Amino acid sequence: MPDVIQNLLEPNDKKIVLLVLDGLGGLPREPGGQTELETARTPNLDALAAGAECGLHLPIGYGITPGSAPGHLSLFGYTPTDYPIGRGVVAALGIDFPMRAGDVAVRMNFATADAQGKISDRRAGRIPTEKCAELCALLAAVKIPSVEVSVRPVKDYRAVVVFRGKGLSDRVHDTDPQATGVKPLEPRASADRGKKTAEVAAEFIRQALGILAKQKPANAVLMRGFAELPHIPSMKELFGLRPLALAVYPDYKGVSRLVGMDVIPDLRDLDHQAEALASSWGKHDFFFLHHKYTDSRGEDGDFDAKVAEIQKVDAFLPKITALKPDVLIVTGDHSTPAVLKGHSSHPIPFLIHGAAVRPDPVREFGERACLAGTWGVIPGAVLMRLALAYSGKLAKYGA
Amino acid sequence: MPDVIQNLLEPNDKKIVLLVLDGLGGLPREPGGQTELETARTPNLDALAAGAECGLHLPIGYGITPGSAPGHLSLFGYTPTDYPIGRGVVAALGIDFPMRAGDVAVRMNFATADAQGKISDRRAGRIPTEKCAELCALLAAVKIPSVEVSVRPVKDYRAVVVFRGKGLSDRVHDTDPQATGVKPLEPRASADRGKKTAEVAAEFIRQALGILAKQKPANAVLMRGFAELPHIPSMKELFGLRPLALAVYPDYKGVSRLVGMDVIPDLRDLDHQAEALASSWGKHDFFFLHHKYTDSRGEDGDFDAKVAEIQKVDAFLPKITALKPDVLIVTGDHSTPAVLKGHSSHPIPFLIHGAAVRPDPVREFGERACLAGTWGVIPGAVLMRLALAYSGKLAKYGA
Repeated sequence: MPDVIQNLLEPNDKKIVLLVLDGLGGLPREPGGQTELETARTPNLDALAAGAECGLHLPIGYGITPGSAPGHLSLFGYTPTDYPIGRGVVAALGIDFPMRAGDVAVRMNFATADAQGKISDRRAGRIPTEKCAELCALLAAVKIPSVEVSVRPVKDYRAVVVFRGKGLSDRVHDTDPQATGVKPLEPRASADRGKKTAEVAAEFIRQALGILAKQKPANAVLMRGFAELPHIPSMKELFGLRPLALAVYPDYKGVSRLVGMDVIPDLRDLDHQAEALASSWGKHDFFFLHHKYTDSRGEDGDFDAKVAEIQKVDAFLPKITALKPDVLIVTGDHSTPAVLKGHSSHPIPFLIHGAAVRPDPVREFGERACLAGTWGVIPGAVLMRLALAYSGKLAKYGA
Repeated sequence: MPDVIQNLLEPNDKKIVLLVLDGLGGLPREPGGQTELETARTPNLDALAAGAECGLHLPIGYGITPGSAPGHLSLFGYTPTDYPIGRGVVAALGIDFPMRAGDVAVRMNFATADAQGKISDRRAGRIPTEKCAELCALLAAVKIPSVEVSVRPVKDYRAVVVFRGKGLSDRVHDTDPQATGVKPLEPRASADRGKKTAEVAAEFIRQALGILAKQKPANAVLMRGFAELPHIPSMKELFGLRPLALAVYPDYKGVSRLVGMDVIPDLRDLDHQAEALASSWGKHDFFFLHHKYTDSRGEDGDFDAKVAEIQKVDAFLPKITALKPDVLIVTGDHSTPAVLKGHSSHPIPFLIHGAAVRPDPVREFGERACLAGTWGVIPGAVLMRLALAYSGKLAKYGA
């Protein structure tokens, strides 16, 4: 996708804002009913839609349910299948761990095992982050010859382990059995070049279980998402942008760093994000604002709470529009219908607003209203193209 | 297309039904009028559409009129241009001839030649199928060293010849000159590896002309569509499905076998198909139901009779919905407008119904109503993706 535009880039100081309501797309609560977004009172979004080009997008492809990382890559203008990103990398980047080429990162959950070593709780009673940090510090005692091991807390029971050394690979299966009442799986190579890493992981787990033996409830560990750093060209290289990420949650900062965004580290909430946006306005030309809780409430299966989160973002919109961005995109990275309590493959509504767009007949922001918009259902990565075009950053093609 | 989903497949027992009204798409009988489908009273299809995602599909591509075999390949989730199926193979599979890899099948027409051997009638006065069968039996006398020759009647003046032996290939040009007043062409190889088969075909024709010399009007033969069995991965391999075909007409059983479907052999009509569907419900997870006569009446140019066939299928729908399939797709394999008396390139309306879809504003099933649906005009092979997604057979992509 970027090849055609590479020679057309004309960077300027015009401002693009991408506002992502995580998991925005939804489904009706009951047959014949409205989705979360259709239910929400969203006067500001509706006013934007009325002056915008609207449509729906598919981050990866027809019928594919996007994970968060590929969903965001798509919104950042990349074809996600060209750049598979493992869970371990997302976790490591999310906590600012300085990964290097050749490192293997793994998501680790603290868990509870019974006397036979069978997992009784895959999340160790959801221990708080402080406890997780303490346990990670204890695991610093793990020593493996010629491999540097780093163990870092992420959030609650979640941690990340990074192995650094020669000849490591991410071709290793998860040890998380995704069930209770059974023992964790042994780390097994999924290809020959994963054998050494599988042995390293097995030795790590052996020592970790010794160190954690007396801990309650976190006396076990589960590993998943062995991953090496993918080689992704930056948004600067591909699009000539100077991008900035304004996200609260670690994973979204992680994926932003992967594409070379600057990241503001300690944001707490939408107000805080709006302040940071205003104070960084002069130094960047692309701003990614992320709101996590629409997805969280969808995952909880709480339809009304997801509606409330959408309304909260709607009320917050004037803080963005007050800055008069040249292009403002509002959308989600995937659908998380409350009725499904999880991500889904349904297309996600978007609006793209700015002085240069051609407003279409859509008058409200919703899944079905957007079907009548300019763009129909398009690949998510197209949105970046439109943002570049409508902010005057792409020259004419051909004479 | 299938590559991305190959690693996401999570087979389950949820049921997908694909109901194909052959040649469904149509055109208005007069300017400003309605198509066959728009004219038909279809309360059951309309009710389904109201709870479904709708759109139109193109089996092969913009402006391409699909033959039946590639039209169906597309609905089965394949990109038809990746798997060209020769005329000879379609004919052989259509009459249940058990073709093997390496066999070369050819469509043969009985024809009439004058005293100089020039073709005066390319269809031998459209001799009836019984006469055709008699002549095929006479041609069993053809003997070619180390090549097994099978000659089988198809319908009217149409027959199929299958050559079996070592080193055969389909790289041979047609002998049908597509004109009268000229001699048939010699069989010529279109590539080096077709030379032996061209010689075999020449010898077959030489002996056949001897055997038929005294016949009237069928004293000559024309061959076209030399074809080997294509290597098509099965629906099991590509999609993890256990598919079953419920078709009355031989050609559709043939193309179903090509993609590894189980086929119920002796179905007579829709009622019979419905019974077989119900009794096979537990043993498969994908069911292809085919109704031929919408296409036949379109080919006849009989607008009202095509409308009646659509209404017949509508009345039959409750027998399918009573089984509560998790995903039900209703569509056609191509358009056959009665006003054109043949296949056409127009997009074909579809609906995809099930608990997991996001119903769109479409309230009736018709070519123009479906334009307001979720999907716009998409490649036919996309429908299989959506069916897999909405039956929960595809895992999330990425972390």
